[in-house]
Amino acid sequence: MAVTLDDIQRAAARIKPYAQRTPMLTNESLNQRVGAQVFLKCENFQKVGAFKFRGACNAVFSLTDEEAARGVATHSSGNHAQALALAARMRGVPAYIVMPENAPQVKKNAVAGYGGQITYCEPTLPAREAALRQVVDATGAAFIHPYDNERVIAGQGTAALELLADAPDLDAIIAPVGGGGLLSGTSIAAAETKKGIRVIGGEPEMADDAFRSLQAGKVLPSDHPQTIADGLLTSLSERTFSIIQSHVDQIVTVSEQGIADAMRFVWERAKIIIEPSAAVAVGVLWERKIDLTGLKVGVILSGGNVDLRKLPWAKR
Amino acid sequence: MAVTLDDIQRAAARIKPYAQRTPMLTNESLNQRVGAQVFLKCENFQKVGAFKFRGACNAVFSLTDEEAARGVATHSSGNHAQALALAARMRGVPAYIVMPENAPQVKKNAVAGYGGQITYCEPTLPAREAALRQVVDATGAAFIHPYDNERVIAGQGTAALELLADAPDLDAIIAPVGGGGLLSGTSIAAAETKKGIRVIGGEPEMADDAFRSLQAGKVLPSDHPQTIADGLLTSLSERTFSIIQSHVDQIVTVSEQGIADAMRFVWERAKIIIEPSAAVAVGVLWERKIDLTGLKVGVILSGGNVDLRKLPWAKR
Repeated sequence: MAVTLDDIQRAAARIKPYAQRTPMLTNESLNQRVGAQVFLKCENFQKVGAFKFRGACNAVFSLTDEEAARGVATHSSGNHAQALALAARMRGVPAYIVMPENAPQVKKNAVAGYGGQITYCEPTLPAREAALRQVVDATGAAFIHPYDNERVIAGQGTAALELLADAPDLDAIIAPVGGGGLLSGTSIAAAETKKGIRVIGGEPEMADDAFRSLQAGKVLPSDHPQTIADGLLTSLSERTFSIIQSHVDQIVTVSEQGIADAMRFVWERAKIIIEPSAAVAVGVLWERKIDLTGLKVGVILSGGNVDLRKLPWAKR
Repeated sequence: MAVTLDDIQRAAARIKPYAQRTPMLTNESLNQRVGAQVFLKCENFQKVGAFKFRGACNAVFSLTDEEAARGVATHSSGNHAQALALAARMRGVPAYIVMPENAPQVKKNAVAGYGGQITYCEPTLPAREAALRQVVDATGAAFIHPYDNERVIAGQGTAALELLADAPDLDAIIAPVGGGGLLSGTSIAAAETKKGIRVIGGEPEMADDAFRSLQAGKVLPSDHPQTIADGLLTSLSERTFSIIQSHVDQIVTVSEQGIADAMRFVWERAKIIIEPSAAVAVGVLWERKIDLTGLKVGVILSGGNVDLRKLPWAKR
């Protein structure tokens, strides 16, 4: 039942008509600043502005027609909810999204804009799970977890597959890690495509459950983490922990300042908008806690969804 | 002595080892918003963050070794100064840049950072021209005008050449117009590459000298224009007026609000950083003063150099 390179390749074929084949960019200023040759995989240009569309799309289009007809469901207020809503709309089936009442209006609008049917709940995990169960019981919809799902993981791995097609000589590849879906898919795709490639997870110091879990040899969830990388607040599941433990070389933590500085540098020099979670992956190079000097390093820029009125460097 | 497609093709070959072959991006949200199929030519990813590098590079590398050895000079405080300094450094020759004392420190630093040798002058046009003459007399450097120069115009035209290679079916192409170097090069490249293509200049309403000049049939410079598109404050020269008059179908003006709205939309949806001058070209589609519905429209995004602390939509 483990996710394989074959699953990822089939996911790539499955999502091809729907997902963006995102470009890879390079930037000389960034190379000079970090002392490595960096290859940026621009998932900020992906549908809904984040890699999440890959996994959601693969999950939705993996369903049989009967399954799909009953719709899909999830509890999420972030990029996964938007991604699932869009993928469901592309397949012409309903997406039921459970969101806390206090989710930002902009996120509610985004999900509704992609045709998602929102059920509001109290902003607690038990309330979310109860509301989700209710929706699934009532509709028969397939629950698509944001990361603890093999089809989602296989979909997320397609970004690394494309990056390795564009830059086959990579010595290392870095992806941010929150719940671990992207890093899991990336690590399987990379390790099975290119022998000896180093796979590195970038994680906020302030939400370092993956770092601590790998050290401890068991899942140690974060307790109310606080970081500007708000896409990385979730903790590993047993499934993603197990994949990461066997395929990822190391997790490197990045300070809040490092995240903000790397983000700003990429905006200013590479002229692309990346969200703080994506900047965590750049931050691994930026802070140089590990030596990647002179290497060819792929970086998965996970997304570009930020509130332009709330930038970490704005003067107020 | 007129610039031809052949000049632009030779410029493309000349600058190829130095300039970025910038990508073309598409964005479904933008297409839907403006009702056309838009192909964005990302000169914001060009060296020094703007198309200006193409023209400066072509001019610098067109010089004979003897000419080049004496260096190049210009009076500019904007992207052209940085572009010229970088191109000169790549050729290993000096660049003398005349700048007003009151130019922003960030621009002084940028020029110096590319190795430009700065001469400061009073912030008036006569003082600039006098200082430039002095530098040229003292050094024998070749004066490279930011736009009133055929090699510069030929270089700027290479962006449209690449765009038409990536999107050969374009019905129309839009470029912003300030001094007219980019629009001149674009119009020659487009009109001579693809029969019947519409070439449109986008200009701020608040700096509409090209619009008025074409109506009047003679050069009518702007008098102290004020617009957030600070790259488009300059007026046409006789040379660029003449090229634009014969190759450009029309100039469309864009309101300040339209510039800011189009800029923000591109940031938020396409996840790329464009400067207000680039947003003027998008603004032509955005405001729909002319009907481009359903057409394939190329847009030259001229650059991405903005002060991230001074965004037109920031709450203060």
